[in-house]
Amino acid sequence: MENKVFFLVPVSAVLALFFAWYFFHQMKKESEGTISMQKIAKYVREGAMAYLKQQYKVVGIVFLIITIIFSFMAYYLKIQNPWVPFAFLTGGFFSGLAGFIGMRTATYASARTANAAQQSLNAGLRLAFRSGAVMGLVVVGLGLLDISIWFYVLQFVIGALDNATNLTIASDSSMKLIIITTTTLTFGMGASTQALFARVGGGIFTKAADVGADLVGKVEENIPEDDPRNPATIADNVGDNVGDVAGMGADLYESYCGSILSTAALGAVAFAAKGTAVQFNGVIAPMIIAAVGIILSIIGIFMVKSKEDASQKQLLSSLSRGINFSAIFIAIFSFLILKYLNIPNYLGIWGSMLAGLFGGVAIGKITEYFTSAGFKPTQRISESSKTGPATVIIAGIGTGMISTAFPVLVVGISIILSYLFASGFDFSNISMGLYGIAISAVGMLSTLGITLASDAYGPIADNAGGNAEMSGLAPEVRRRTDALDALGNTTAATGKGFAIGSAALTALALMASYLEEIKIAIARIPEKTELFFNAMQTDIHQASIPQLIEYFQINLMNPRVLVGAFIGAMAAFLFCGLTMNAVGRAAQNMVQEVRRQFREIAGIMEGKAEPDYARCVAISTKGAQKEMLLPSLLAIIIPILTGVIFGVSGVMGLLLGSVSTGFILAIFMANSGGAWDNAKKYIEEGNLGGKGSENHKAAVVGDTVGDPFKDTSGPSLNILIKLMSMVSIVMAGLTVAWSLL
Amino acid sequence: MENKVFFLVPVSAVLALFFAWYFFHQMKKESEGTISMQKIAKYVREGAMAYLKQQYKVVGIVFLIITIIFSFMAYYLKIQNPWVPFAFLTGGFFSGLAGFIGMRTATYASARTANAAQQSLNAGLRLAFRSGAVMGLVVVGLGLLDISIWFYVLQFVIGALDNATNLTIASDSSMKLIIITTTTLTFGMGASTQALFARVGGGIFTKAADVGADLVGKVEENIPEDDPRNPATIADNVGDNVGDVAGMGADLYESYCGSILSTAALGAVAFAAKGTAVQFNGVIAPMIIAAVGIILSIIGIFMVKSKEDASQKQLLSSLSRGINFSAIFIAIFSFLILKYLNIPNYLGIWGSMLAGLFGGVAIGKITEYFTSAGFKPTQRISESSKTGPATVIIAGIGTGMISTAFPVLVVGISIILSYLFASGFDFSNISMGLYGIAISAVGMLSTLGITLASDAYGPIADNAGGNAEMSGLAPEVRRRTDALDALGNTTAATGKGFAIGSAALTALALMASYLEEIKIAIARIPEKTELFFNAMQTDIHQASIPQLIEYFQINLMNPRVLVGAFIGAMAAFLFCGLTMNAVGRAAQNMVQEVRRQFREIAGIMEGKAEPDYARCVAISTKGAQKEMLLPSLLAIIIPILTGVIFGVSGVMGLLLGSVSTGFILAIFMANSGGAWDNAKKYIEEGNLGGKGSENHKAAVVGDTVGDPFKDTSGPSLNILIKLMSMVSIVMAGLTVAWSLL
Repeated sequence: MENKVFFLVPVSAVLALFFAWYFFHQMKKESEGTISMQKIAKYVREGAMAYLKQQYKVVGIVFLIITIIFSFMAYYLKIQNPWVPFAFLTGGFFSGLAGFIGMRTATYASARTANAAQQSLNAGLRLAFRSGAVMGLVVVGLGLLDISIWFYVLQFVIGALDNATNLTIASDSSMKLIIITTTTLTFGMGASTQALFARVGGGIFTKAADVGADLVGKVEENIPEDDPRNPATIADNVGDNVGDVAGMGADLYESYCGSILSTAALGAVAFAAKGTAVQFNGVIAPMIIAAVGIILSIIGIFMVKSKEDASQKQLLSSLSRGINFSAIFIAIFSFLILKYLNIPNYLGIWGSMLAGLFGGVAIGKITEYFTSAGFKPTQRISESSKTGPATVIIAGIGTGMISTAFPVLVVGISIILSYLFASGFDFSNISMGLYGIAISAVGMLSTLGITLASDAYGPIADNAGGNAEMSGLAPEVRRRTDALDALGNTTAATGKGFAIGSAALTALALMASYLEEIKIAIARIPEKTELFFNAMQTDIHQASIPQLIEYFQINLMNPRVLVGAFIGAMAAFLFCGLTMNAVGRAAQNMVQEVRRQFREIAGIMEGKAEPDYARCVAISTKGAQKEMLLPSLLAIIIPILTGVIFGVSGVMGLLLGSVSTGFILAIFMANSGGAWDNAKKYIEEGNLGGKGSENHKAAVVGDTVGDPFKDTSGPSLNILIKLMSMVSIVMAGLTVAWSLL
Repeated sequence: MENKVFFLVPVSAVLALFFAWYFFHQMKKESEGTISMQKIAKYVREGAMAYLKQQYKVVGIVFLIITIIFSFMAYYLKIQNPWVPFAFLTGGFFSGLAGFIGMRTATYASARTANAAQQSLNAGLRLAFRSGAVMGLVVVGLGLLDISIWFYVLQFVIGALDNATNLTIASDSSMKLIIITTTTLTFGMGASTQALFARVGGGIFTKAADVGADLVGKVEENIPEDDPRNPATIADNVGDNVGDVAGMGADLYESYCGSILSTAALGAVAFAAKGTAVQFNGVIAPMIIAAVGIILSIIGIFMVKSKEDASQKQLLSSLSRGINFSAIFIAIFSFLILKYLNIPNYLGIWGSMLAGLFGGVAIGKITEYFTSAGFKPTQRISESSKTGPATVIIAGIGTGMISTAFPVLVVGISIILSYLFASGFDFSNISMGLYGIAISAVGMLSTLGITLASDAYGPIADNAGGNAEMSGLAPEVRRRTDALDALGNTTAATGKGFAIGSAALTALALMASYLEEIKIAIARIPEKTELFFNAMQTDIHQASIPQLIEYFQINLMNPRVLVGAFIGAMAAFLFCGLTMNAVGRAAQNMVQEVRRQFREIAGIMEGKAEPDYARCVAISTKGAQKEMLLPSLLAIIIPILTGVIFGVSGVMGLLLGSVSTGFILAIFMANSGGAWDNAKKYIEEGNLGGKGSENHKAAVVGDTVGDPFKDTSGPSLNILIKLMSMVSIVMAGLTVAWSLL
């Protein structure tokens, strides 16, 4: 270890896991309420676990196949680093574990939150928020743990093993860290792969159940949400857990690790010429920032508490206090960290981080403006319900599309500023500029421990409400859990802004890492090394980014780049289309089943007979498992095929196309969906005729369409764009060895 | 003139205009039917003319302002060619004229078609098709006329005038044709600007009227389409004329000229080193192909006739015969033309043309598969109506998004093949490769005379049906006009495939033209010329594309390129969002007005009182004029701002982002909209419960949402992506002189 301060990384990871364990046990000590509440919680928990078991079985098979392919490439073809298969596996494993623990916690917490909410809003908040914090801390804890383990291990073994695969590190001692950091990116690919399956599968499950439950329950039978007479209601609650909790956990585990790993990889390159001590510090800088972010998050979580008789406004300010504390202090501490690590141009790099941080906050505010019923855009969607569902849909799509303009401008400014700050306002200082872009994403996600807590407690409150409704608790309890859910929405918007903004920045950083991996891949193959030398008169180890750009013609007049960009943009649309249709099909099956139960089970409407909840859970499970495979596998296959056919320049075009279009499509879908949801809620609050009016029915159609927008297709896109980059990086050897054009 | 064969271009243009005049007078000679039919036709005609007058007033003001700006740039700042303001004006004028004549013909033809359809299907077909041919021939005739006039004029004057603006042509005699051809691109910008206004304004008008008429008429009052009791019904028919006819005419005028002009501009560059004779031939090749295409189109139009007692199938084959004849013979003739002109590698370039032609046909077939009720995707959308409007919307959006994958692959293959064929399979032969991409678009559009005829006669038949309905003709007549409309759909799909495919290819070609214009702009400014020479050790006139790429860092690791790509992709979404919302708002006003009339005008439902048709026309007109400005102006402002802030590399990123995302978004919106339309028609044919069932109501919601998708936002995107390129080209001087980063 070049710098002892690295110990902070594993220590803070263990600290996070310890507090997660502590909060979990605190929560478990609380009462789960009446027999009926326990029973319902058990149904949901069992449904969720059954789903996850099935999900992990399928994903396990996929991982097995990919690992075999990687091993073949590494040990037989020798176009791949020998650590890749193992790193890939651990990434997937930890991502799955983070989702599993978060979900298990949520399913234990929902009845307890409902029970606490009987007492007071404040009690409910504390229980739900601390349970959400379990997931926040597990995600960051497992993330940094995995990163530090691999970083330690590879330090010792990378040289010895790599000699066996013909790679000459000898010529340049800075090469070792470059290889270590690009290898750890493979573990990012494992995390992204498992996250995509979790998001897509969970998203299909939850929305099939939700849409199915709403279409028959609310629209046809006129019974309220979460009514125990609705056969799909347990499935709907299970869905919140497997989609919004387990899916979100895996998703953000992937984002968190991805941002740190891509920054580390670019740091290894940017500081390669400055000596190994500086290079080492540049690599660990994002990790140290994340480690300090964990400690600040834990303090922030403890700050979220308020007096017993606190008003809703006080609760919100208590929540914001914790989050703002962590954000402000990480901004200050990261300056000290960068200065202490003696990073060249630490002031500029700190500026890059701040550019990212401000960008994330701005995107959150923009999201809030376009999706909250407190502002004009969503109110206008509500008003368009006066002319029926068609105009609600048109207005929602129109507004969602318009809303993409502002986050794009914000991210554009963040990209340019973080590049310019880090590069010392010199466009030709490419490596430093790209490091700046990468670290700006780290800034956004460094306090994920607490921002994710404020995001994850929403579904817990939601489930608590469902439990209260089904157990027949006083309406007051439901109102409180609804208030809790709404309370988190403002803070959650910021968290989502960070998640989406960091995805775009990390994906761009990964494009640069891809070029580095291409260098390594060329170095691995003697003929390619020679070809490169003959063309460019430079040894591949010394090749600069402009030389790689020239050699592979990675410019906008190369038809392979153009076609790649088209395919990348198309991949985002294709992926959304497949997941939308998947939800549509699964929801239709659910509707048929719910209608059948209402028709065939006598006494169900009178509450005398119990519906067959398990059957609905099984239908959603089956639908999700069947439908998640194609879109998820496409994300892996498209970059491989593009690489094999169009070569390096085609892949670069592909990544640019998928990042730009994917980012915009993700915002469009999230914001349209969010706005429809709140436009409906606005009417339910008594505006424009209120619940049960024709306007309300029109708004419900919008909300239903928005469900897969905001909870299936939209959030999966964040993972998609990074997974495609990761796959390209890991498959770089294949592209270099075999590409056709 | 270096080659006398150029005379073919103006001659065929005049020939096209002559036959357009001939068909128009033939049509005018027919009877317009009963007094009632004449009255309705007059209402529609007057409404359409009133709209166009208002539209051209607004567009005229916009053109005036832009012309003043261009004149300032050309004569005062001297960063612009002095011919630019004039060329810009003629492009706009001829585009508007083409739309005007086409629309005027259509409004005269509709009642006559209805009258002829009383006699037989065949008589109706011939009248409607020949009237559609008027527009087809006017578009290509005016297009080639404008091109030949400017080409002649600039030959004589460009040298003298340009000396006055410090531009040294002397150093390289091939420079003259390069300047001429890039100047003529300005006239393409005029055409694109007017086309965008026509498409957006017309699209908002027609869909506001359509959605408004349907929502109240069909859904609330349960009266059929085109019922004279519906106050919006005249506005709806006016809309078909101003949107589908005038808008389409202006649109395809722009596509036609754009493809020829961009190919000519790239030809001037690609063959610059081969001597002026070869260069001249390379420039006129696309024009000669288009000229021969006109002659073949005229012959093809005359081939569309059939026996008096022909079956529907025979009529279709008669229609296809004409189109296939023109397509096959242009494929053969273009080989002879390229060979006769002695173009270097004429065989390869011919291959590029064929790649484009096949690509266009394939996109047409794909469109048909995804949008026709004869195939699974649309049938599945119909079936999703069983679970209500929400699942219809989800299925339509999902299917539309999935459908983008195949056209993207087809265009990708066309791009790569046309590049490889023309460049002799050498990726570094950039100029020739790009010429190949450009000419592949010319291949698609060369027989526009007849393909547009088969597209434009649809709205005429549609209007004839409206006239028949309102005049109370026998239901048999309506059935015949519906059959005529349906008949054209298959052939029109191919036409649309050509339009959308050529838009993508032309836009890519324009990216290359942009770089050429940048060279000229640098040459115009002595300090910039010196800067370039100092950096690259090459005179700007001799600069190659790779040198420009290196100088401006037009590569994928330049943050300006990345941000540009994000902005370009976003521009397409923003534009769609604005036009969607515009239709939504205008339609809501229309709904309120129609409801008011039903409520306040006594006896309207009994057919005793006449509704106030004019008021509905006025509402659509006002809505369209107010709403079209912002999205259209954004298309002009975004590239200018991007250039001024991010410089040349930012603009190149912008264009790539807008072309790739715009192309895909256009296909998504067109196919979702088309599929919803046909899913509804499938139910109306008696499937799934038929007209009036709950399923039908759900499908009508889908169709209504699809209206602005397929007729406002979607088709405008084709123009948008080219207009943004054209604006960038014309504003190149500004970017070079002033860019910030």
